[in-house]
Amino acid sequence: MNDLAATSRRLRDLGVRRAELLIDRRRAEANIATFAGRAAAAGVALRPHFKTHQSAGVAAWFRAAGVDRATVSSAGMAAYFVGHGWGDLTLAIPANPLEIPAYDELASRTRLGLCVDSAATAAALAAGLRHPFALWLEIDTGHGRTGIVWDDADTLIDVARQAVRAVAAHSPVPRLAGLLTHGGQSYRGAGPAAAAAVFAEVRDRLQASRRTLTQAGIAANLLSAGDTPGFAASSDWSGLDEARPGNFVFYDLMQLAAGVCRPTDLACAVACPVIGVYPARGEAMLHGGAVHLSYESLATPAGPVFGRLLGLTADGFAELLPGWEVTALSQEHGRLAAQTPAARTALNGLQPGDLVLVAPVHACLTCEQFGSYRTLDGVELPRYRRD
Amino acid sequence: MNDLAATSRRLRDLGVRRAELLIDRRRAEANIATFAGRAAAAGVALRPHFKTHQSAGVAAWFRAAGVDRATVSSAGMAAYFVGHGWGDLTLAIPANPLEIPAYDELASRTRLGLCVDSAATAAALAAGLRHPFALWLEIDTGHGRTGIVWDDADTLIDVARQAVRAVAAHSPVPRLAGLLTHGGQSYRGAGPAAAAAVFAEVRDRLQASRRTLTQAGIAANLLSAGDTPGFAASSDWSGLDEARPGNFVFYDLMQLAAGVCRPTDLACAVACPVIGVYPARGEAMLHGGAVHLSYESLATPAGPVFGRLLGLTADGFAELLPGWEVTALSQEHGRLAAQTPAARTALNGLQPGDLVLVAPVHACLTCEQFGSYRTLDGVELPRYRRD
Repeated sequence: MNDLAATSRRLRDLGVRRAELLIDRRRAEANIATFAGRAAAAGVALRPHFKTHQSAGVAAWFRAAGVDRATVSSAGMAAYFVGHGWGDLTLAIPANPLEIPAYDELASRTRLGLCVDSAATAAALAAGLRHPFALWLEIDTGHGRTGIVWDDADTLIDVARQAVRAVAAHSPVPRLAGLLTHGGQSYRGAGPAAAAAVFAEVRDRLQASRRTLTQAGIAANLLSAGDTPGFAASSDWSGLDEARPGNFVFYDLMQLAAGVCRPTDLACAVACPVIGVYPARGEAMLHGGAVHLSYESLATPAGPVFGRLLGLTADGFAELLPGWEVTALSQEHGRLAAQTPAARTALNGLQPGDLVLVAPVHACLTCEQFGSYRTLDGVELPRYRRD
Repeated sequence: MNDLAATSRRLRDLGVRRAELLIDRRRAEANIATFAGRAAAAGVALRPHFKTHQSAGVAAWFRAAGVDRATVSSAGMAAYFVGHGWGDLTLAIPANPLEIPAYDELASRTRLGLCVDSAATAAALAAGLRHPFALWLEIDTGHGRTGIVWDDADTLIDVARQAVRAVAAHSPVPRLAGLLTHGGQSYRGAGPAAAAAVFAEVRDRLQASRRTLTQAGIAANLLSAGDTPGFAASSDWSGLDEARPGNFVFYDLMQLAAGVCRPTDLACAVACPVIGVYPARGEAMLHGGAVHLSYESLATPAGPVFGRLLGLTADGFAELLPGWEVTALSQEHGRLAAQTPAARTALNGLQPGDLVLVAPVHACLTCEQFGSYRTLDGVELPRYRRD
């Protein structure tokens, strides 16, 4: 209760009046330093996925840690970061043939990596872009979303051969930049050991795909993989050339539930005003709904959870406040449930106009809901926004 | 397959290159006309909730249908519509005491309705606003989200009395504007009969709350209710003074599943490029994910559904294309599954660079993901965006 009240007072002192996304910069920088250190130790290039934050301000913290390349997930996001001086970007989603003019414009301004998992798209890119670009082949190492299945040797060789041929018609160095994968199955596991096992399997499968191509006389060069759970659970990243995790900069309740971060690593949260208190049903209502937190939820035995409360002290974000869960969202409302006797007692002290700090389930989607963030020391961080 | 290919060609002709939200204006205007007609027939004022579209351009279609008042869900959204000439707005979410300066500014520029369900917030508003405003008491008629429980006479009379007293200190006409409710439980039912039953129950309970206050000597004046399923399933709205549904302008798969609209009423959809085709698993991948569609899903026996495909003809949106479902989303990817033999055959004709039209599960949250929309005749419709 003390923590709840103290957090509310501090948020009010920060000038929060309505739902706002706050970032604990110290935690974010510590998370960046951990991953930059692991990359350096393994001789792996860190190419963080900027879709999590989409902010030039946060990107500058990466640059200060020695990172000079990044991953993005749309042409618009790439253009935003090129505009902020990023000169080496990989668009890690199968290229969209309809956006070739945008890719070509990007390729004229930055080192651009594009990825494909079909010969048709490779041919379209090679025919359509006038400026040089790096062509990556996307491999499905078990996630089952996009990419050529890692052990489907026939398709792999066929698409790679056609891709090289397509590039050859337009490039003095006709070769693939490398093989790229997203080990997204690491999100399905329970516990850090499972995530580390996914990391190892993804790396091994990517290496196997490269061997398949090498044996067929096709040079595939670099191996690039990226997913936060796998890389967070593995301290030794060797065997890869490039690491593309993104979420680790802020982490979230999903990563916490997977056991790959600590509560004290959570670096972004949504401050929300309390607009109603309902002691009879053990709940308060927040003006903070799906348009602020996103609709992604954590499955728990008692039902979905859309957020938990964090404490805030003079030193920054603190531990999670036990006993509080956001159990339902509508467009603008968030239902905050007091789940323990202590929380139900503390609920009686809540008033409309108090503020709480909600740790999101999925930081990437929550960040997407805001046009800018604010650090605890009051620095505004605008971000890229799609039209 | 024919429809799939024809839709892709038409979307390409419209100039769609990446995920974009399209609106069939003719359908939206027909939906508006239906609701404006029911309101007029019952002598009920239509005060549509603009949180669904948040666009001055769409709001203008309402104005053309004779609507001169609206509902919003945040002070920022209110300011946007005041800036576009809307002079009568109700903020239908319990007022946030921290935003009193913003409310006062709004009240200086428009007829502003605010709602409360606690004496503390009523007192804070009355003390804090210098400009006149309409104070609504929010009633919980069964939704269980916000509001005073409709048959909790003691609380109702107590809060109403304190609210009137608070207003009295600042107004020559010390009275409540009325009782306001959101019959959101209509979203839980199955079928139009259930939604119509919720409508009737909500109206009856709201009337009962007013009688309780009247008997205690407190004038509560108007009765305002709003939820699309209930109002869509009920052709006779009499017994209320004001109707505040919002979603009906576009409808969506959730309303369709509830049986309160037809496929031919669906008026917004997201055009998405195909970026991968995977016949072996009967799927294609769209560059259209949670950041485009939102993460809200429809529960089906086979698992969650995040969207279905619509056809597009020269006349506008057509029927749903059978056999296609968006079965998973990540941040930017949407997994499109071919669920019938015919769809699996058609899948073989799909290529990266083709386009599909995805009907969203929840239009309000999908619209929230875009900075602007486009009508099928090429008119750009910008919308309000939170910072």
